[in-house]
Amino acid sequence: MDIPLKIGRFQRENRTFFGILIGDKVLDVSQEEKREYPLKEVRPLAPTVPSKIIGVGLNYRDHAEELKMPIPKEPLIFLKPVSALIGPEDYILLPPESAEVHYEGELAVVIGKEIYRPTSYKEAESAILGYTCFNDITARDLQRKDGQWTRAKSFNTFAPLGPFITKNLDPDDLNIQTRLNGKIVQNSSTRELIFKPAELVYFISNIMTLLPGDVIATGTPPGVGALGSGDTVEVEISGIGVLRNYVQALM
Amino acid sequence: MDIPLKIGRFQRENRTFFGILIGDKVLDVSQEEKREYPLKEVRPLAPTVPSKIIGVGLNYRDHAEELKMPIPKEPLIFLKPVSALIGPEDYILLPPESAEVHYEGELAVVIGKEIYRPTSYKEAESAILGYTCFNDITARDLQRKDGQWTRAKSFNTFAPLGPFITKNLDPDDLNIQTRLNGKIVQNSSTRELIFKPAELVYFISNIMTLLPGDVIATGTPPGVGALGSGDTVEVEISGIGVLRNYVQALM
Repeated sequence: MDIPLKIGRFQRENRTFFGILIGDKVLDVSQEEKREYPLKEVRPLAPTVPSKIIGVGLNYRDHAEELKMPIPKEPLIFLKPVSALIGPEDYILLPPESAEVHYEGELAVVIGKEIYRPTSYKEAESAILGYTCFNDITARDLQRKDGQWTRAKSFNTFAPLGPFITKNLDPDDLNIQTRLNGKIVQNSSTRELIFKPAELVYFISNIMTLLPGDVIATGTPPGVGALGSGDTVEVEISGIGVLRNYVQALM
Repeated sequence: MDIPLKIGRFQRENRTFFGILIGDKVLDVSQEEKREYPLKEVRPLAPTVPSKIIGVGLNYRDHAEELKMPIPKEPLIFLKPVSALIGPEDYILLPPESAEVHYEGELAVVIGKEIYRPTSYKEAESAILGYTCFNDITARDLQRKDGQWTRAKSFNTFAPLGPFITKNLDPDDLNIQTRLNGKIVQNSSTRELIFKPAELVYFISNIMTLLPGDVIATGTPPGVGALGSGDTVEVEISGIGVLRNYVQALM
């Protein structure tokens, strides 16, 4: 495996571009002429614009044990609309329709090439571009009320993603941590994942075509909890970075 | 209300374009110079390329009565991925993962302008471009098994849409019929809809931003049933037309 490489999507003045992070500089790779900017002079956006976001329920062994639930035999998937996507440092807006909005820190898989009905995990794995952080924001009260999870997970701003996609990262034992106002509230490792990234890509792309930029959120470890207006929530994964968002009531 | 107008998306040779149906001719409206082609010389495609497809569960009064289920107090929504979209005359492919794939004929709402958190049904209604036919193909066995509906409704080809979008159509009392190999299997009216198109747009766009081209499938009347390889399935709605698809096993 080559050395890890961080890819991001950035805004500078009125232009949006893809870039590679080199130390504290961003190399703009979207133009013929290569340009570099200091990271602090550009604004990181959600690092991909997916055609779809697929989530996975109950995929951490330690979380299943905490809930005294049996280990699932196959992944349980759901969809989040792309309209819910936000980037690092953006605001999560709490809608008046819910009184109980939860964070769920997650490892996200970003797809690098079109894949449909692969015949092996190895083939599925070859479609992965890299990994980033995701926060699967969920209105827990509406999730319980509806039974179906769609409404609870689909409000605008309920899909924070970023900050960068790390390519050439071994996803098998990464520390994953969520902090609420600086306090650690989720702390686990991707070695607790029941279905690994390549297995998820295999399972999902046997249902639907995955396209470059598509996102699979791989599920959350134990410790989910409520967000309130004024909170700061951070998802940090080793080798990737910190996805920080602020929380505010939607007026 | 102006006279009904049929809008479609068509392929001719290697070009894809939006057109207006005038009698048996298609007026190409995507170029400066207006051109007309006979309908039989162009191939109708799914009439929109949505950023998302939102479905609604149990939304026909006669269907709820048939199932002896209480009338829902608010819409129950789900998402289908855009990768499942097909057009008229395309093949629905039955995946080996399911032994029970059902048709569900539905009226589809197509959004005409961006809308988020409207404050009235009237405002919601103004965002509707028009109406077309939809077939919410569902792997019933996987729907029961998973509890969550996403996998069951997300296989490629499980979202036939078309043939045309009818603008300036009153959606309040349209006959909706599904035929399997020519035999009527669903036959109802949109006056049986529990939540009307404007109410659905209102409810959904208070959760997520709807964009031009987005599709809301409004739910299915009584009479859903299984598809087999070799079948022809048609959804016909008065004032819109016939959405015809063929069924074949996925190899």
